[in-house]
Amino acid sequence: MRLVTNEFAPLKNVRVTDGFFSRYQEIARDKIIPFQWRAINDAVPGIEPSHAIRNFRIAAGLEEGEFGGMVFQDSDVAKWLESVAYRLTISPDPELEKTADGVIDLIAAAQDEDGYLDTYFQIAEPDRKFTNLNECHELYCAGHMTEAAVAYYEATGKDKLLGVMRRCVDLIDQKIGPEEGKLHGYPGHPELELALCRLYRATGEEKYLNLCKYMIDARGTNPCFFEEELEKRDHRAFWGGGRQERVDRKYNQSHKPIREQKEAVGHSVRAGYLYTGAADLAAETGDEELARAVRTLWDNVTKRQMYVTGAIGSQVWGEAFSFDYHLPNDSVYGETCAAISMVFFAKQMLRMYPIRKYADVLERLIYNGTISGMSLDGEHFFYTNPLAVWEEATKRSGVTGHIRSKRPGWFGCACCPPNLARMITSLGSYIYSTSADTAYVHLYVGSEAELDVGGNRVTLSQSGNYPWDGHIVLSPGAGTYSLALRIPSWARSFRVTCNGEVLHPAMTGGYAVLRRTWTGEERVELDLPMPVEFVEANPLLREDNGRVAIQRGPVVYCLESADNGDDLDALEVLTPEDFRTETDCSLFPGMVKIVGPALRRKPWNSDALYRLSDGEDFEETEITAIPYAFWANREDTREMTVWIRRG
Amino acid sequence: MRLVTNEFAPLKNVRVTDGFFSRYQEIARDKIIPFQWRAINDAVPGIEPSHAIRNFRIAAGLEEGEFGGMVFQDSDVAKWLESVAYRLTISPDPELEKTADGVIDLIAAAQDEDGYLDTYFQIAEPDRKFTNLNECHELYCAGHMTEAAVAYYEATGKDKLLGVMRRCVDLIDQKIGPEEGKLHGYPGHPELELALCRLYRATGEEKYLNLCKYMIDARGTNPCFFEEELEKRDHRAFWGGGRQERVDRKYNQSHKPIREQKEAVGHSVRAGYLYTGAADLAAETGDEELARAVRTLWDNVTKRQMYVTGAIGSQVWGEAFSFDYHLPNDSVYGETCAAISMVFFAKQMLRMYPIRKYADVLERLIYNGTISGMSLDGEHFFYTNPLAVWEEATKRSGVTGHIRSKRPGWFGCACCPPNLARMITSLGSYIYSTSADTAYVHLYVGSEAELDVGGNRVTLSQSGNYPWDGHIVLSPGAGTYSLALRIPSWARSFRVTCNGEVLHPAMTGGYAVLRRTWTGEERVELDLPMPVEFVEANPLLREDNGRVAIQRGPVVYCLESADNGDDLDALEVLTPEDFRTETDCSLFPGMVKIVGPALRRKPWNSDALYRLSDGEDFEETEITAIPYAFWANREDTREMTVWIRRG
Repeated sequence: MRLVTNEFAPLKNVRVTDGFFSRYQEIARDKIIPFQWRAINDAVPGIEPSHAIRNFRIAAGLEEGEFGGMVFQDSDVAKWLESVAYRLTISPDPELEKTADGVIDLIAAAQDEDGYLDTYFQIAEPDRKFTNLNECHELYCAGHMTEAAVAYYEATGKDKLLGVMRRCVDLIDQKIGPEEGKLHGYPGHPELELALCRLYRATGEEKYLNLCKYMIDARGTNPCFFEEELEKRDHRAFWGGGRQERVDRKYNQSHKPIREQKEAVGHSVRAGYLYTGAADLAAETGDEELARAVRTLWDNVTKRQMYVTGAIGSQVWGEAFSFDYHLPNDSVYGETCAAISMVFFAKQMLRMYPIRKYADVLERLIYNGTISGMSLDGEHFFYTNPLAVWEEATKRSGVTGHIRSKRPGWFGCACCPPNLARMITSLGSYIYSTSADTAYVHLYVGSEAELDVGGNRVTLSQSGNYPWDGHIVLSPGAGTYSLALRIPSWARSFRVTCNGEVLHPAMTGGYAVLRRTWTGEERVELDLPMPVEFVEANPLLREDNGRVAIQRGPVVYCLESADNGDDLDALEVLTPEDFRTETDCSLFPGMVKIVGPALRRKPWNSDALYRLSDGEDFEETEITAIPYAFWANREDTREMTVWIRRG
Repeated sequence: MRLVTNEFAPLKNVRVTDGFFSRYQEIARDKIIPFQWRAINDAVPGIEPSHAIRNFRIAAGLEEGEFGGMVFQDSDVAKWLESVAYRLTISPDPELEKTADGVIDLIAAAQDEDGYLDTYFQIAEPDRKFTNLNECHELYCAGHMTEAAVAYYEATGKDKLLGVMRRCVDLIDQKIGPEEGKLHGYPGHPELELALCRLYRATGEEKYLNLCKYMIDARGTNPCFFEEELEKRDHRAFWGGGRQERVDRKYNQSHKPIREQKEAVGHSVRAGYLYTGAADLAAETGDEELARAVRTLWDNVTKRQMYVTGAIGSQVWGEAFSFDYHLPNDSVYGETCAAISMVFFAKQMLRMYPIRKYADVLERLIYNGTISGMSLDGEHFFYTNPLAVWEEATKRSGVTGHIRSKRPGWFGCACCPPNLARMITSLGSYIYSTSADTAYVHLYVGSEAELDVGGNRVTLSQSGNYPWDGHIVLSPGAGTYSLALRIPSWARSFRVTCNGEVLHPAMTGGYAVLRRTWTGEERVELDLPMPVEFVEANPLLREDNGRVAIQRGPVVYCLESADNGDDLDALEVLTPEDFRTETDCSLFPGMVKIVGPALRRKPWNSDALYRLSDGEDFEETEITAIPYAFWANREDTREMTVWIRRG
């Protein structure tokens, strides 16, 4: 009995017309995808050659040479293809499609007779295939390429890459599993698990789901596969080449079976991908125990270890979670890819449970901690997403040495930019889902959709000026069904009308449920008041005591020194009531900035570092907050903070 | 023309009778010195053998074996001897003296014919002497042993070790200097510089001062000696054994000549020792330019880079300074030895400039950030001295992974405990100094002294219950001279009487100067009011904005979870006026703790991590602050903070 209670409308059925995200989709289309194409073809002067396409040419016998790039370099080609698939879905481009077809031909040519596909091992270590699942990303790369294959098939109907990856996964299925003689292994970097669920849905082949289930359940059992594998290769470490004594099992969430895990630990991207795969598996197989486990992990991440921007991974060591309520704002890692992995996880949870808390986090992520990874010119990227920055400290202190105060350009190891591209281009597939009798609206992204509600084709469109304005107009198509509108937890109240008549809908799981027979002529208007709000953190979150974040609607704001001068922690705010909004298109079309009164500690006349206090000495000032996602788009960004002291 | 304007009374002329420091001196006498003796003789079960004495026995040909311990292991013997010297000065102990004499005999026996003395090179790498001044601590060890030699000579009149170290330094003088054929080098870890000044004063030999001057001035010049040395040994790194590309010149303050340095950088203990040596040299040679340089560096450290406890070194990377106003409380390094090095530096500055700011920092150090390195049982030690601790974070987050929330026992690499021992045992030599006509009282430490004021022998004693009480009674001996009493900058006012009559003394450099012909019958009473004070930090010190530290007299307080429960940052204080003091001897005889009202953010009923704010929601509570130096002496120390949020 599947636990899937509702299914998202596929990308091809949703046209995004949103003012906010259209801009991001343009950037993905016009900047990231073309740039990445040049990058994987080593055609960008000034950046380390990627070698990614060349590796496939060498593996295919079309070129002589050594393997180049990281051991997981193939995944860059996969992510590019996946983004291209989404981009072709939302706007056809025969030339781009032809280019992609050519890449797929190359990949097919590179594949070994037996289905094996991983250019690192094919070129550099052909005798060591499947000997280092922990460190060498073979299964990770297969996962990404499988995702690309499914996406490309769904976008174009072309199944060549799907066939390639079925053969590749079939080989993995022959090598890995519970049977004697097979490796009792699983990915060092989870990714294949979630891809196998997608492959299962695209092909209907249960064996892919079974392989996923095996990998999910083998992980964390004893004896530890990774430890055994390490011993078999005489403790030789891939990274660094030295001797490795033991496996850091927490790092890749293999410290205990996922069903027993209560707390998110280790590398945060690995965790996010693993949980996504486990949630999808639970949903597809009706595994209530596994579903409970992912609910527990979801709650741990979102109620204990997630920044207000949606960022996760509070430390650079292992790019990892640390522990409950430990969320330092300046030394955080907050990898863009980790936030994106939570977007995937949220979607899987929503398929089982159409409950507001999952979509609220999804919304928090897409407006804040994911897109903060990209500059508004689409050409510069953050891997880390801090909530407080003092530029000098990023340069002169080890604690924050991993933080950048300006987005660098494309990296040789380019995980985050193409991950952003695939999230942004596929955004349409996160907006609507349907059950037998209900059409859910999870996100208020301007769009037109064709939905399948209990077998009936229903159109649904929405428009507005979200996230800057809380007035949303929906046009539900004809049919008898419930329209379930998420009322975000940030909204203190809401008002919904149908053709001007105020409704008093029932609330289910945080969704306002409007059940009726729609004629197709109704104009449903949802008003979510968007005053400037101060958000406070749970007192147990040590770091943010005495501070507030400014939020309006789903958008988390920040202060930058460009607007407010240096030493942002000398500022304090009192109440949100005196703040006003101003539209300022200088950074982003339609951007709403927030302006209001604050107190600033008066600079001292003396050069002393400490003094006896005679009470605080303030001067009144006015501060300007901009959306967090847009920070570091101006030259003079020396400091930034999300959490502002409250007076 | 020397810049020395006043000279400290030597240790042998000052008997400490202080309630507070007598306790620490007892600990040094009864615990640290005996324990270290067993430690350097490998007689403490459960700790890594030191090998320190055994290395000397091997070098002396009394035993076969390999060198053991760190490359600077000899310095442990030196520091032990130096502490013993001070301890014998303050309370004779023939048996201990005999033991020390035996060690000195051993050291003499270990010395090479030509004067060379460093057991690491003598045993392990006899062909590599003076080939790696940067990394290998030869000159550092010579410095410490020279300090021990001078101290032992001054304590006992015995000059055997002094002779050994003169020969050792004479050899160094032959090897290092400006002349062709000599190494144009200087210590990788400064220490010898300050020891050479002491040796100069003990012997009257100017060549030691000249060698010091050479080392101070050669440092930071180009081409860089350490770079040349690195090239000569084919870039072989001592630490780790691999290839070292370049020298981190900032790490050991060789990035530019000290006369051009405006900002303290690099390893903080190295910096403190270097500045101390430079200040001493400037004072002895009348080098105004160098004096200006050390004044600049003093101001930079104390006005930009020093914690309110006196701790320095704001980052674990390089155990180093970071930059101005960057003083994170939880990820600080704050090495005990670095704070002690500032005690040495303060004394040298005071010899030139009897100005309050130097003695104020000295006082801040001795009551707070130095002795915090030692538990009240004298058997456990901190190397790092944080101002905010969350135990869980020290265990589970890399940012604070170097911090301990409980003092560990003695380490194999035991730099801090013996450094504390020598500071505590020599404390008497920091209290009084004299010029031709003035007796300065820098510290209010109960004691009896014989001073030389312009050639006249003058007795001076003080008593009281400092630092718990600001009432100090002084008995100046007969003579015509000024009695200069430091009025600490933490005192908002003061009252001084002579035989009950209120005086209105002139103030010079922060000292109340009482000039008269003393009969020897006067009772001078100084009252320094000690209300509970809130101290605030300069707004530029980002970390402490919106926070206050509780201070009373010279003692900085902290909150511990043992008294106040967990989540100390949920607390806020309003005004010091409602705080009261309570004497509580459970931790330390006479300890004054501070109790008063605070607000605590109410725990949330929900498990949410964030919520919209409707204004702060507090409950009233009472908090207890204890002296910072005494933190972590109770089992249930899960959290501690110095800087408390101000409501």
